[in-house]
Amino acid sequence: MATVGVIGGGQLGRMLALAGIPLGLTFRFLDPAPDAAAGEVGELLVGPYDDPDLLDRLADGASAVTFEFENVPVGAARRVGALPGPAALEASQDRLAEKRLFRRLGIPTARFDDEVEAFPALLKTRWLGYDGKGQRLVETRPVGADDVLEELVPFERELSLLSVRGRGGETRFYPLVENMHRAGILHLSRTPAAAAPQAQAETYATRLLDELDYVGLLALELFEVGGELLANEFAPRVHNTGHWTIEGSITSQFENHLRAILGLPLGSTAACSRTAVMVNVIGHEPERDAILAVPGSHLHLYGKKERAGRKLGHVTLLDPTPTCVRKIERLVS
Amino acid sequence: MATVGVIGGGQLGRMLALAGIPLGLTFRFLDPAPDAAAGEVGELLVGPYDDPDLLDRLADGASAVTFEFENVPVGAARRVGALPGPAALEASQDRLAEKRLFRRLGIPTARFDDEVEAFPALLKTRWLGYDGKGQRLVETRPVGADDVLEELVPFERELSLLSVRGRGGETRFYPLVENMHRAGILHLSRTPAAAAPQAQAETYATRLLDELDYVGLLALELFEVGGELLANEFAPRVHNTGHWTIEGSITSQFENHLRAILGLPLGSTAACSRTAVMVNVIGHEPERDAILAVPGSHLHLYGKKERAGRKLGHVTLLDPTPTCVRKIERLVS
Repeated sequence: MATVGVIGGGQLGRMLALAGIPLGLTFRFLDPAPDAAAGEVGELLVGPYDDPDLLDRLADGASAVTFEFENVPVGAARRVGALPGPAALEASQDRLAEKRLFRRLGIPTARFDDEVEAFPALLKTRWLGYDGKGQRLVETRPVGADDVLEELVPFERELSLLSVRGRGGETRFYPLVENMHRAGILHLSRTPAAAAPQAQAETYATRLLDELDYVGLLALELFEVGGELLANEFAPRVHNTGHWTIEGSITSQFENHLRAILGLPLGSTAACSRTAVMVNVIGHEPERDAILAVPGSHLHLYGKKERAGRKLGHVTLLDPTPTCVRKIERLVS
Repeated sequence: MATVGVIGGGQLGRMLALAGIPLGLTFRFLDPAPDAAAGEVGELLVGPYDDPDLLDRLADGASAVTFEFENVPVGAARRVGALPGPAALEASQDRLAEKRLFRRLGIPTARFDDEVEAFPALLKTRWLGYDGKGQRLVETRPVGADDVLEELVPFERELSLLSVRGRGGETRFYPLVENMHRAGILHLSRTPAAAAPQAQAETYATRLLDELDYVGLLALELFEVGGELLANEFAPRVHNTGHWTIEGSITSQFENHLRAILGLPLGSTAACSRTAVMVNVIGHEPERDAILAVPGSHLHLYGKKERAGRKLGHVTLLDPTPTCVRKIERLVS
């Protein structure tokens, strides 16, 4: 029975375990929170992410170690040989390095830093940003080196591409997802994105995956503007915009991430339905009964306590009617 | 966060938890084996099924208690108010009571006891039989009261109907499953059974569910012979012939059993694909990599040690080609 170690014990770790336990895997998590969401589905080591003893215990006898958030200390990830690998982790933690990497690989991005011509523009912290946190609009070019200035993109829509690359370099892609945010937090994902530039997105993701010698699931966030794709950022992990794959794809993003890091054959990324919609449950416990009464609803709660802006769960609908989607949106907001 | 108590901690308990954790449920199991398969996905109380203290701990604060095998001591089930309820448990434990119940409800069965005319006939222990155990062929009518004599049925095929009934009496049915056994153990299930007498089977199951005021998932095993259905037995629990519902149905048998016993709205039992095939992994660890390399294969391992005749896992395929099914059959046998 193989064990997988995971740095971080949030909902992504929890869903990794729910996908991996049927494959005969057991899980071990490292998280500072004693009530971490993944604690129910594996062994939980409680302590700081960079505690060397705990990291060694996490990796002890594990067939693979991975992480479920991108702000893992790189040293910690290196110590335990965590996949997808330190290069991906470093690039995704540093917005400037990330943009330079995109550019170097010929992946278009919004104008940034010296290129910015129009204001207001977006000033983003270079490190540790997530869910719209650590960014603000500025009217003039600021002085200071630890932020990244980014020109606002009048995009038509936000897309994400989930891809998975195996140990041998085999790569598979899920259909493009269209994402809607509220207050900077993902509210709804819909797939496949209509008339989406799938091939172009796959070309960009392939460059990134190959450059980073990536192993595992990667989410590439893109803006579509005037028929062009601009890379916004990537996440070196399973991703909220891929939660629909649990029911909506033959192999979920979670299972494929595990297959990749364990060197197992990748699974089909084909969709199981014509469309899938995922709605996040944010901030407060939803009315479970009412959600389950919506035909075809798939409820996923993470076992987390209520808090404003916190992701507590999600609901997935396959081939839903617009009425069902609206019902779910009302029930979770 | 609601807790569900389960008497028994085998693979059925494990799969109940894997279905229920996303609904925000937590699980507690009672099993004599300290390495019970469900121990990875919930709290495991180790001890005899009829230990009053452990039963009380199992039920303490639980929103519902259920069982995952039908040979639970009835007194234990009663003590904790376990669903689907003691009437169903008693009838399913006693082959004679079960047959009499079928007859009373106008559900045809094979000829038994005094009715038997043709030999060899099947002599089955009245109590505690499963997976073909506790039965043998006899050439003459035996003397003794604790066995049930049953005339052999020259059936064309074995079918099973999975149904679920909610607390309020709402009932839903999955499409009929066709089952193939090897050495008395389920080898393969295929759904929907071609040209199956769905309506007739549902009529019989409804009589049983209503008579028992049943709450939860019930599996009714049937023989089809000359266009007629004969009831063989029923199981008052989630069932091996329903494992395909994890990927193959909008709501799995596990989730619907939990929804039923918790008084939540039942989920759709519609199929997600034109066909689904499930193959059991029996006796020894399969070649995991080879199974995962078969397109569209869904592997479920139960974390159990190898032993001849033991169910260690299963593989589900949706809309498979005959070649893929044969490949999986070769890989698990």
